[in-house]
Amino acid sequence: MTETDLRPARNGVDVPTLFATRDAVAATPELAQFQFRARNTWLGGTHSRSTIQGFSGAGQEDTSRTGPFVFDADHPAVLVGEGNGATPVEFLLHAIAACLTTGVATIAAARGITLTRVESTVEGDIDLLGVLGLADRVRNGYRQIRVGFVVEGDASPDELAAVVEQSRRRSAVYDVLTNGTDVVVDVATP
Amino acid sequence: MTETDLRPARNGVDVPTLFATRDAVAATPELAQFQFRARNTWLGGTHSRSTIQGFSGAGQEDTSRTGPFVFDADHPAVLVGEGNGATPVEFLLHAIAACLTTGVATIAAARGITLTRVESTVEGDIDLLGVLGLADRVRNGYRQIRVGFVVEGDASPDELAAVVEQSRRRSAVYDVLTNGTDVVVDVATP
Repeated sequence: MTETDLRPARNGVDVPTLFATRDAVAATPELAQFQFRARNTWLGGTHSRSTIQGFSGAGQEDTSRTGPFVFDADHPAVLVGEGNGATPVEFLLHAIAACLTTGVATIAAARGITLTRVESTVEGDIDLLGVLGLADRVRNGYRQIRVGFVVEGDASPDELAAVVEQSRRRSAVYDVLTNGTDVVVDVATP
Repeated sequence: MTETDLRPARNGVDVPTLFATRDAVAATPELAQFQFRARNTWLGGTHSRSTIQGFSGAGQEDTSRTGPFVFDADHPAVLVGEGNGATPVEFLLHAIAACLTTGVATIAAARGITLTRVESTVEGDIDLLGVLGLADRVRNGYRQIRVGFVVEGDASPDELAAVVEQSRRRSAVYDVLTNGTDVVVDVATP
């Protein structure tokens, strides 16, 4: 009996299931098609609320979520809001940190590395002259986002750094934030 | 006395403050430099938690937030997680909907349009062959994101559609998601 048989869930990641999922998708690539969704409702001022529940993937509509995840967004007072939630741009920082962290835990597990700590801080610099329409040369979005990880586990510093690097290479959020994607905006005005 | 004097807060947006803020930034462009931040801690498996509180902008460190906003992220079971939160990529959908909605409410207020409804649905298509490392030709992130707005208010359909279009043109999140930005990832391995 190998260590994997005894402890399949390294870092809380079920490694045998991870590899079984990968094998199943390799055999039936259509299973890899996912669609995620959100609904957002304006609540007044700069305040809105999203509900996130349904998604499709692995050939079917998900039924595992029994209720929605609910997130408010708002501007702080200095940006003419009431601070009822984090700002939309701050959710991008959460998304990149969470995506990279998930990759770190999963890749480490696949490589037989047991982690004891994964923490990160994210900073995003933005010049609001762009959004305010005061300088055409200034972009609307972040000029730069920096993610700083602290990772500890039973591997060498080089091995741990390599796990972070592989997570970056395979991160869905990193890809979108660095390379951009097609965003279509439609409006119905009854 | 004008209508603006009587009802400065159209759509819940304090329009005089909005324009005063814009004028102040135009006079002192350094006020437009903002830095947003997040801290993320891995909780095991694909589950992590971000706290978002401090930011700097308008020449100082914010003190308006008396506590953090806290968001969990996780994968669903079909993606080897436990469903303790929305997935990282779903937070991108919330971010784009919330950013565009904030812009719609603000721009409508500035244009003297009173809104009665702003709702949106967002869909993002992703082929996980990329993230799983099963097809080099497939990107890791979303192939496309679609945002569908329903907007109602005291303006013509064309005027309401123009508000959404202007919001898209000035959206920080739309800019990052479509054009990408510089993302630096560092790691410390004590």
